[in-house]
Amino acid sequence: MHIAIMAGGTGTRFWPRSRRKLPKHLLNIVGRASMLEQTVRRIAPLAPPENIVIVTTRGQKDAIRRELPWIPPTNILVEPVGRNTAASIGLAATFVARRDREEVMASLPADHVVSRASALRAVLRAAARQAAKGQELVTIGIRPTRPESGYGYIKLGRSLEKAGSQTLYWADRFVEKPSEALVKRFLSSGKYVWNSGMFICRVDTMLRMIHEHLPRLARGLERIGRAMGSPELRRILSEEYAALPSISIDYGVAEREKQVVVIPADLGWCDVGSWQALLELSSRAGNGNVILGKHVGIDSAGCLIHSPRRLVATIGIQGLVIVDTDDALLVCRADRSQDVRRVVEELEKRGLTKYL
Amino acid sequence: MHIAIMAGGTGTRFWPRSRRKLPKHLLNIVGRASMLEQTVRRIAPLAPPENIVIVTTRGQKDAIRRELPWIPPTNILVEPVGRNTAASIGLAATFVARRDREEVMASLPADHVVSRASALRAVLRAAARQAAKGQELVTIGIRPTRPESGYGYIKLGRSLEKAGSQTLYWADRFVEKPSEALVKRFLSSGKYVWNSGMFICRVDTMLRMIHEHLPRLARGLERIGRAMGSPELRRILSEEYAALPSISIDYGVAEREKQVVVIPADLGWCDVGSWQALLELSSRAGNGNVILGKHVGIDSAGCLIHSPRRLVATIGIQGLVIVDTDDALLVCRADRSQDVRRVVEELEKRGLTKYL
Repeated sequence: MHIAIMAGGTGTRFWPRSRRKLPKHLLNIVGRASMLEQTVRRIAPLAPPENIVIVTTRGQKDAIRRELPWIPPTNILVEPVGRNTAASIGLAATFVARRDREEVMASLPADHVVSRASALRAVLRAAARQAAKGQELVTIGIRPTRPESGYGYIKLGRSLEKAGSQTLYWADRFVEKPSEALVKRFLSSGKYVWNSGMFICRVDTMLRMIHEHLPRLARGLERIGRAMGSPELRRILSEEYAALPSISIDYGVAEREKQVVVIPADLGWCDVGSWQALLELSSRAGNGNVILGKHVGIDSAGCLIHSPRRLVATIGIQGLVIVDTDDALLVCRADRSQDVRRVVEELEKRGLTKYL
Repeated sequence: MHIAIMAGGTGTRFWPRSRRKLPKHLLNIVGRASMLEQTVRRIAPLAPPENIVIVTTRGQKDAIRRELPWIPPTNILVEPVGRNTAASIGLAATFVARRDREEVMASLPADHVVSRASALRAVLRAAARQAAKGQELVTIGIRPTRPESGYGYIKLGRSLEKAGSQTLYWADRFVEKPSEALVKRFLSSGKYVWNSGMFICRVDTMLRMIHEHLPRLARGLERIGRAMGSPELRRILSEEYAALPSISIDYGVAEREKQVVVIPADLGWCDVGSWQALLELSSRAGNGNVILGKHVGIDSAGCLIHSPRRLVATIGIQGLVIVDTDDALLVCRADRSQDVRRVVEELEKRGLTKYL
């Protein structure tokens, strides 16, 4: 199988550590390696390096080549502009289809935490077996462990046959970021799983689905596909990409498609969408603090402190996120960390682009 | 008259901006110039540069010479070790007495805020006139504007004659850092003033009082005085100083002396003893924040943010002190800022001397 890693995000939620040229998946905020490297290492037993494809942006390409020198450079696909996941996955499918139209490709986000790597590989293998039949788009659902209104949900429909220890279901419906009341009903019904953003499909099937639901995208990808391997590619990509529809694979294909299969799994999965999520995910030191760097704390608890260079002293504070970098410092109430994007917007508005 | 500025403090209360070699009076935390420079400029109309004496430590001498190049270098007296204000004032008095034993000398702390400079000069002139009579130690009392248990208080006794617009009183009693209950009684009685730490006295009178109340200090100062102007001075200072009693002029002389006169005054005075005091003293920007540096704030109020180099972004925080320096960062609840000294103690304990 081929595995395509979607590494084009320009996430702002981990500012000031994440920047335009250093998005979340290139940070080592969880563990020692970057989230991208961890993602790739996790699935490496499933596919040889030449079958691993990375989709990213021009600004990140060099960093990714340095990070993953064992991935063939031609497998790093550069999007001239970001056009959301339907375009990224379509581009990867087009690239793989030139090798083998019937190849199964798993598309995975580069910036999620999966603590149970072998469970992930098992469910991807089961998904690939189902996808190889050539009819369905297969996705991985995460069994919810808490009410979480920031995630997308998938309602499980009828079950298909069991495949080994995995049970497969038809996907009944996708719900993006539901209300808290709805989330509680979802959890008690037992019929909903979190949308992990992992999609497994034969590339010909994926391109057929894109052709059916997003014909404008399909036309662009066909022209790009014809230019692949030629010196024209870069020019054609530039011409086509900006005009492609910017839509997620979830909205653009999965929700519109009848033939979607979902496999629920327990993967120790987390999309680590904010500093608060990272704080909750991390193992705590004394007083429930998560500390990276030198720290002197007096009556300080429940804080996340990232300061690789400077000593940080804190007195009498609770539940704060403190992130120090060479040129910018964030001090934020942990439960307000989704508002970090408002800081980034403000920096854009004021023209303080050197901090972006 | 001569004016001696006590600039030997190694205050830790403004860490991380204040350091061993950069104590509070060398910081420009209030206004553009250092507190020392502001102190000297405030009293400059009262005395020519050759009559201004600075008492400091070896580590600060060069910084002070750079800061105040117009003060004759020989007027900068260096204490080999800190021995509190009785020794510092005694050293300055000894120095001045070699010029003129009957000269009046005003001793002033280097690190207080006085917003009404002309009122200060008027009261110092009145104090000098009284001191010139050669009998009393004169001190300036600040009329209290709020209950403040961190200050020292002086109880006003019988009044002496009026001198112009100033009324002079005998000092009845000194009370260091009274309880909050006591402070309330002091304020409602109308008979107490804050101890400003400013003492005005003829130098022969001051040395006589030291001789009477602190004979060990007087003996040391006499030997030092004999060495002044000779190449022996530095050696003699080193030999004598460590053995001098370490006691404040308040405890060691003023409280024991009967002949102490106090002149109450309204000077817009503040000793700026903590980051919180600085926050309260400063004019507030929107949301009651006091900002030095680039700041992006979302729902942030009542904070003091000092960050001359790095951009600081804050989200959802109230009443915090954030002080960023090249190698250390402080995040502290404003009403806990007296605990900054505990951070300094902890740094000492851990041997992290580079941050001191």
